[in-house]
Amino acid sequence: MSHTSTYNVAVVGATGAVGQKMLETLEDRNFPINQLKLLSSSRSAGKKVSFKGTEYTVEEAVPESFDNIHIALFSAGGSVSKKFAPEAVKRGAVVIDNTSAYRMAEDVPLVVPEVNEADIQNHKGIIANPNCSTIQMVAALEPVKNALGISRIIVSTYQAVSGAGNEAANELREQSQAFLNGEELEANLLPVKGESKHYPIAFNALPQIDVFQENGYTFEEMKMINETKKIMHSPELHVAATCVRLPFFTSHAESVYVEVEQAGVTVEEIKKLMDHAPGIVLQDDPATQTYPTPLDAAEKKDVFVGRIRKDLDHENGFHLWVVSDNLLKGAAWNSVQIAERLIANQWL
Amino acid sequence: MSHTSTYNVAVVGATGAVGQKMLETLEDRNFPINQLKLLSSSRSAGKKVSFKGTEYTVEEAVPESFDNIHIALFSAGGSVSKKFAPEAVKRGAVVIDNTSAYRMAEDVPLVVPEVNEADIQNHKGIIANPNCSTIQMVAALEPVKNALGISRIIVSTYQAVSGAGNEAANELREQSQAFLNGEELEANLLPVKGESKHYPIAFNALPQIDVFQENGYTFEEMKMINETKKIMHSPELHVAATCVRLPFFTSHAESVYVEVEQAGVTVEEIKKLMDHAPGIVLQDDPATQTYPTPLDAAEKKDVFVGRIRKDLDHENGFHLWVVSDNLLKGAAWNSVQIAERLIANQWL
Repeated sequence: MSHTSTYNVAVVGATGAVGQKMLETLEDRNFPINQLKLLSSSRSAGKKVSFKGTEYTVEEAVPESFDNIHIALFSAGGSVSKKFAPEAVKRGAVVIDNTSAYRMAEDVPLVVPEVNEADIQNHKGIIANPNCSTIQMVAALEPVKNALGISRIIVSTYQAVSGAGNEAANELREQSQAFLNGEELEANLLPVKGESKHYPIAFNALPQIDVFQENGYTFEEMKMINETKKIMHSPELHVAATCVRLPFFTSHAESVYVEVEQAGVTVEEIKKLMDHAPGIVLQDDPATQTYPTPLDAAEKKDVFVGRIRKDLDHENGFHLWVVSDNLLKGAAWNSVQIAERLIANQWL
Repeated sequence: MSHTSTYNVAVVGATGAVGQKMLETLEDRNFPINQLKLLSSSRSAGKKVSFKGTEYTVEEAVPESFDNIHIALFSAGGSVSKKFAPEAVKRGAVVIDNTSAYRMAEDVPLVVPEVNEADIQNHKGIIANPNCSTIQMVAALEPVKNALGISRIIVSTYQAVSGAGNEAANELREQSQAFLNGEELEANLLPVKGESKHYPIAFNALPQIDVFQENGYTFEEMKMINETKKIMHSPELHVAATCVRLPFFTSHAESVYVEVEQAGVTVEEIKKLMDHAPGIVLQDDPATQTYPTPLDAAEKKDVFVGRIRKDLDHENGFHLWVVSDNLLKGAAWNSVQIAERLIANQWL
């Protein structure tokens, strides 16, 4: 492949919640695009999408769609990635895949640039973008791990419906209005599209994200557990997760307990680490009721950290509250960031 | 005091979110009431409230209001309890106080009947009803503690707005409608009435319940930590809490991590303990997506437990999801239950 200064970019799943944010982010970052191709499954083909003032027609992805593409950003579901990512790679593209299809594959780097940018270099055509709830947690904990070492994480999540796509956001909107009107709530999608049971999400909390695994954990919980170890290069790290879907549209929040290896660490030290970490914004001042919230974090690229406290019984234990826009740092921005690092380091 | 078979009962704070539920619960339980007196602060005096088809006028509480009262149920805020509970006791009443005013006082029993009913006996006129988020957690963990011993609890809460009263529920309703209409959200109350900063709760999550303490924890978090140790008679128990307010009306949910003392315990054993525990309903079957949710738990007296899993790294660690109606088991029902046990055991 020639090293051009602009690139032919394909966005697969361009009409989805993440795909839309990818286009916004590419535009916002003034990404060096030569030719842009918007692709989707047959269901969304033909839709019109605008980018930098130009209208594009979304095309159905076929193997030949990836001819002459340098970078392909996938977010159209695991089955689409499994079918077309190898076709894109075969044609010389580098795939940045936002689905779970390749994340745990041994020869696929799983990357959060603030944590393991160097792993990008080892790609064999596919680079995986981690799960949204994993990304913001490892971004917040990496500076702690680097400075102090970490041995254990216990996280409980507070996750927005947009993580389940535009349809889930519509379901929350419709159910909320129905509830306020005193009408019956109709639940057809959440917690998991296609599963046999559906619960209302409006004014409710659902302790299930993605399908249950044999061990009683959900797939979302196992993603957080396994992806964290891979991204942080810490196979021995103890990670436990409980993932909960909540009635808000944007940004995931996380209540994180972390045990550091170094003794005698103070809250001030952790705050200082956060304050100097790339991509992290410290919002932590109890005296002025300053802490991150999902509404405030929405539409921003950073990971926001607050409520940092020392455990009252465990010398090495700390509690944190971590919030970030699940569609930006949790998906679109992290993917575009990987593409930017790929180019800047000439690892394409 | 004579042992009559019916009792003169005062409800202080009769127009509040909890007071209303107290009246519903007294009615529902067919509580043996001779005379019912509804009291409040001056602000709500004069309001009409119906009980068993009879209309009562709410009177402003004065010391003499408690003449001839056998049982006084207080839920009108800590300052009202501090002012009038001693007056009621002086006049021979037993006070069941739902505020935080006396909970940690050494000579005041803090009671969840399923956990420490016998403590009621030691009352000196005042019995405290614990914080809502504490009650459901200790009710769920007591059978585990009894059978296996517990050494450590880490809890992250998902708390309904009704815990902050009817005004907070109204704020959620109004903000939700404004959001759906695309209007600006007006925040005047949450997270804490009277604090200088207010955040919208609609489609948001607020990691602050009650005011911040010197140590960086909120008062709600410290209530969970200290009350749990007192109720469970376990001053050495390690308890950590992160308390979060969420946009739903009723029922608190909790992601609870617990470490048991006994080795080799299985999830099945924990499930069996829950299944046989008083006041606990096990709702735990991943195969049929069965788990408790706030909407399903609303208007029910039980504490619902599901998502029981063994920690993947810590042999003695278990994760649970605990849900209960914060106004019933978390407040009104627990208070009425204390009153019932007081009578049944002739501890009045």
